[in-house]
Amino acid sequence: MLLFFLFSSWNPFSGGGGESAGRRSQFPPKSLTSKKFSHSAQTSATPRHPIDPLTVGEIHRVRSILSSYEPFLGQFPAIQSMTIDEPDKSRVLGWQSGDPLPPRKAFVIGLLDNQSHLVTIDLESGRVETHEISSGSGYPMLTMEDVAAAVDAAVSYPGLEVSAAARGLSVANLSCISPSPGWFGPEEEGKRLLKVLCYSKQGTPNFYMRPLEGLVMTVDVDRREVIKFSDTGRGIPIPGGANTDYRFHPGPISMEQPQGPSFTVTDGHLVEWANWEFHLKADQRAGFIVSRVVVRDSETGDRRSVMYKGFPSELFVPYMDVDEAWYFKSYMDAGEFGMGATAMPLVPLNDCPRNAHYMDGVFVSADGRPFIQPNMICLFERYAGDSAWRHTELTVSAQLREARAKVTLVARMASSVGNYDYTIDWEFQTDGLIKITVALSGMLMVKATVHDNMNQIENQEETGPMVSENVIGVVHDHFITFHLDMDVDGPNNTFVKVNLVKEENLEGKTPRKSYLKPVRHVAKTEEDARVKLSLYNPSEFHVVNPSRRSRLGNPSGYKVVPEANAASLLDHSDPPQLRSAFTNNQIWVTPYNRSEQWAGGLLTYQSHGDDTLDVWSHRNREIEDKDVVLWYTLGFHHVPCQEDFPIMPTVAASFQLKPVNFFDRNPILRAHPVFEKDLPVCRPSESASAM
Amino acid sequence: MLLFFLFSSWNPFSGGGGESAGRRSQFPPKSLTSKKFSHSAQTSATPRHPIDPLTVGEIHRVRSILSSYEPFLGQFPAIQSMTIDEPDKSRVLGWQSGDPLPPRKAFVIGLLDNQSHLVTIDLESGRVETHEISSGSGYPMLTMEDVAAAVDAAVSYPGLEVSAAARGLSVANLSCISPSPGWFGPEEEGKRLLKVLCYSKQGTPNFYMRPLEGLVMTVDVDRREVIKFSDTGRGIPIPGGANTDYRFHPGPISMEQPQGPSFTVTDGHLVEWANWEFHLKADQRAGFIVSRVVVRDSETGDRRSVMYKGFPSELFVPYMDVDEAWYFKSYMDAGEFGMGATAMPLVPLNDCPRNAHYMDGVFVSADGRPFIQPNMICLFERYAGDSAWRHTELTVSAQLREARAKVTLVARMASSVGNYDYTIDWEFQTDGLIKITVALSGMLMVKATVHDNMNQIENQEETGPMVSENVIGVVHDHFITFHLDMDVDGPNNTFVKVNLVKEENLEGKTPRKSYLKPVRHVAKTEEDARVKLSLYNPSEFHVVNPSRRSRLGNPSGYKVVPEANAASLLDHSDPPQLRSAFTNNQIWVTPYNRSEQWAGGLLTYQSHGDDTLDVWSHRNREIEDKDVVLWYTLGFHHVPCQEDFPIMPTVAASFQLKPVNFFDRNPILRAHPVFEKDLPVCRPSESASAM
Repeated sequence: MLLFFLFSSWNPFSGGGGESAGRRSQFPPKSLTSKKFSHSAQTSATPRHPIDPLTVGEIHRVRSILSSYEPFLGQFPAIQSMTIDEPDKSRVLGWQSGDPLPPRKAFVIGLLDNQSHLVTIDLESGRVETHEISSGSGYPMLTMEDVAAAVDAAVSYPGLEVSAAARGLSVANLSCISPSPGWFGPEEEGKRLLKVLCYSKQGTPNFYMRPLEGLVMTVDVDRREVIKFSDTGRGIPIPGGANTDYRFHPGPISMEQPQGPSFTVTDGHLVEWANWEFHLKADQRAGFIVSRVVVRDSETGDRRSVMYKGFPSELFVPYMDVDEAWYFKSYMDAGEFGMGATAMPLVPLNDCPRNAHYMDGVFVSADGRPFIQPNMICLFERYAGDSAWRHTELTVSAQLREARAKVTLVARMASSVGNYDYTIDWEFQTDGLIKITVALSGMLMVKATVHDNMNQIENQEETGPMVSENVIGVVHDHFITFHLDMDVDGPNNTFVKVNLVKEENLEGKTPRKSYLKPVRHVAKTEEDARVKLSLYNPSEFHVVNPSRRSRLGNPSGYKVVPEANAASLLDHSDPPQLRSAFTNNQIWVTPYNRSEQWAGGLLTYQSHGDDTLDVWSHRNREIEDKDVVLWYTLGFHHVPCQEDFPIMPTVAASFQLKPVNFFDRNPILRAHPVFEKDLPVCRPSESASAM
Repeated sequence: MLLFFLFSSWNPFSGGGGESAGRRSQFPPKSLTSKKFSHSAQTSATPRHPIDPLTVGEIHRVRSILSSYEPFLGQFPAIQSMTIDEPDKSRVLGWQSGDPLPPRKAFVIGLLDNQSHLVTIDLESGRVETHEISSGSGYPMLTMEDVAAAVDAAVSYPGLEVSAAARGLSVANLSCISPSPGWFGPEEEGKRLLKVLCYSKQGTPNFYMRPLEGLVMTVDVDRREVIKFSDTGRGIPIPGGANTDYRFHPGPISMEQPQGPSFTVTDGHLVEWANWEFHLKADQRAGFIVSRVVVRDSETGDRRSVMYKGFPSELFVPYMDVDEAWYFKSYMDAGEFGMGATAMPLVPLNDCPRNAHYMDGVFVSADGRPFIQPNMICLFERYAGDSAWRHTELTVSAQLREARAKVTLVARMASSVGNYDYTIDWEFQTDGLIKITVALSGMLMVKATVHDNMNQIENQEETGPMVSENVIGVVHDHFITFHLDMDVDGPNNTFVKVNLVKEENLEGKTPRKSYLKPVRHVAKTEEDARVKLSLYNPSEFHVVNPSRRSRLGNPSGYKVVPEANAASLLDHSDPPQLRSAFTNNQIWVTPYNRSEQWAGGLLTYQSHGDDTLDVWSHRNREIEDKDVVLWYTLGFHHVPCQEDFPIMPTVAASFQLKPVNFFDRNPILRAHPVFEKDLPVCRPSESASAM
């Protein structure tokens, strides 16, 4: 969103005039100073494809052409942009590997006397083909040089020294950044502007945390002059630098773990990993249940409760066909068949990676005897190549580059409830986040038809698309309702909607007209806590412990973060919807009641819908500062397609439970980066080598 | 959603009476037949935690208690469920490791004479503590035995043989499944019912693709009797079995790749991997651009076009504070600063995994000279431990278990636009899906305050939560608008909204009242293609080639699949929103126009909003069967929290481009499973060994 430069003096463009290219590993870019420019193939002198970007040599060529271009003889424009001017699309589309390249052209945006020059150049002929001066509003993006000069002007402004001194600092203690000003009316026209804001860099490389509040300088970029200086924040302290350092001080992971995984399973069920601890067990109905989820506070070492119990409570899978053979298809898989009962052994290396730990379910037959569902749960550490946090920063004196590899713990099961496969993951992150994912695969429930081509089908008479000859993939929904007994720092919690409400800027001291304001709304009763998600009335959904305040006075909390979702749109009076009325909202909160575990009722099979979450909720009990259960429903609409035939590629959706003012700060600030020396040493298997 | 059993005769419960447990690796579960029951720790005889599930020994004990329980002496109930009856929550919460376990109790649901018995038992005393007979509606989930018996009854029904014969089959050729009936009114009360549906298993293990359409048997589970037989589909062919087999016939992957990655980069830019090929280049403004995306058809080997060009066209990051020093903060990062210009070298092993390939950007300084942004893009194969598809199936004769590990290719860059870091991924899947992810990390833009505790702050006077002493994390949004020049099987494409419309079942031949119907709506002009996403008016969004039909007559297409998103709610007349009016909708489609690349206008800096996507779109040009560009905006609302201090844990959101009737069938049906012998052989590094 903004570029920054330390303001300290530096010597721009000190390089020579040779035909090489600098590497942007220091600032400013030392153009032409180094001989070793050909870093890798794509920087080579020879473009290979019509849309290849300009090479080093080509850029030199363009500049040379522009230098001898008549209108620029007196004054060379500031180059705001220079890119390959791609051939017409038809040329590119018609081009085949081995064909000669179409003429290489460059598109240049230059700025001269506050005017934007748009120039296209043919590299071979050296001709300027088009040259236009923009007459509309707007300027090209600023160059690094523009920004540096503007910042220079700002930090030399005498008022800054005064403002710094008023805060006990000198200008040398500051880092200043240079965000863009936007556009807010005629006053600001005809000039290229920058805003410059300053921070204290004392005691931290993370100066962003230490603003000189209220201080803002408006700089005329071309005149390199501060045209407005405002400092309304002298009474506001600069936030301290303690605990803001995000740099490294030194662990290993790959999906290969020759020393084995780093979680432990004690006594068959108690899982401990990183800062997490929870109890995990197979359940014939729910599949598996995660209980007593606690996380260790990275600051205090305290074990803190997050959740008492979580599991998929019920599913609802209505098909969208009212024929005799189809109308009833409106399954409630957990209560009707059991997500654990239908879970088969997982397939090692394909359902779960190497080094996964497998757990069995001990279930019961109709005769009351036990049977074992072997290997129905797997537990593994995941590393997908992503970072848990990162930041890079380019300063005059140094380049900061800090990133931390993201490793998580996944508990997984897969139920094959007939044709459909539901893989359910609970993924625990070291930053305190829990991500719950439902992945669908397996087979469609298909309907046969007399037709074998769509052209035989009149006006959408079928209840889904044709996915193979004579096969209709009937449209259907999937809903999975999770029971999430949140116990954030203890059983008594409160559900708070943080609504993002649009406000007008009525005082109008600035030309900004509107903004969003977070407004907290505490849910007193169950009715207050029934949520239909909306993109246009956005809210966050917090479960907080009103008795447990952070150091700063924020209530300790977790929020449920919806991601992709779908709502059930059936008639509320339609029997399937009546029975699965727990899908009428995406979120519900109920007071804890040990009999209220199964959203579709304890006895679901052929139930009438008289014992659902919806019925319970309509008692409208008090829920503030009580032991509460959060219910979240994840939905999918599925309009099948040919690619789903004969077996569906996996489709997944997730939601998150995320700490919100639960920790006093980022709990993984001290995470170690990965170094090459820590990674395992691997060789191909015999089998792979022989290939 | 449904359980199935092959109907062929089998001999249930043939096991003896010993004290062991079978493994659910064959059907039916052979209870008590095997001595090696103690598969792993969690099946052990000794529970370790208050909420541990019942052990094998405990289940035997419960059954023994029930057997001598007076009300069940005459007739033993069918056990529909038997689970640990967890101690009261307070007990569990108060329990510490090492404490004695609270009394172990079981909760049993038994069915006897069509009545559900709910029984709790104390294992130590052997006493039945509570015993209730349910008086409400609904039955417990069916047992496997219930289902098997009902299916047995159905397949013995004489009418089935007739229906099979009418289709040229014998009953022995069928696989029958047994979905639940739902509940649709008084007619179906007082009986436990199952629906039984049959499929031809001839020539395929994937019988789900071969339904005997229109055939449905309603079975009274307790009487084991077909009470309704309906076959209205004799004129409807059974779909063929060709290409439905999803089993394996025999590659290796882990994040460790001792033989190196399996993609190639030719001539610096042309990436080839699996069935994908595309051109990848760094761009000073967009960061990187993916062009000429083609996928090889797994059936024909044809190289087929998917997209001409895709890239992040513009960003919009408005802060929600109208103070003098804040009101203008409404950044447009691509056009104002450049996503490539601000991309620093990626951090190996932490930003990207081992074996990643790095690419440089060649950019231009203001003096027109080139400079190199080294290692700004990485390209790597990802394996996160997930499956690309799976299915398991339990039959009398065999257990099918098929899963395929999911491996993808990721192209990544990370821009540090001042404080914020944007990591942008393009992930290519072998099933034809492209997933585009934006991940946010880095630093908040914070505002200082006089306060150091929330209790000093009156009525939400601040514009965001306090995230550290004297630090306010100002609420803000992020929007990233992608330019997606889709060329599905060629340039001329049509945008089709497939609306899921709620319909009433007006004919009323069945008691189902409502259903969803997909209704296609072709967008004729730009106005038709402006989309505001809604959970309550759901649609799919297809870009199809109307001239290219599949074997079945469906138009070849790709759909854009939104996931988590957020909408901009600022006043349309607010200057920032006027300039970033490209965020007024989540989806737009425009006719291809080479000058319309940058959603905020080519010249963005201080622009007035007169050259945005919104302005272009309002010309309302024709877009049917034209070369079109799809624009998708991904949004985030960010209400900061303490955990974001001093550096934010990564937050990510995605959307997908997914083939829809583009391939004739699942293109990864023939994917190979992973075997242990193919995986690399690894040992810990010296460094790790020494730890």
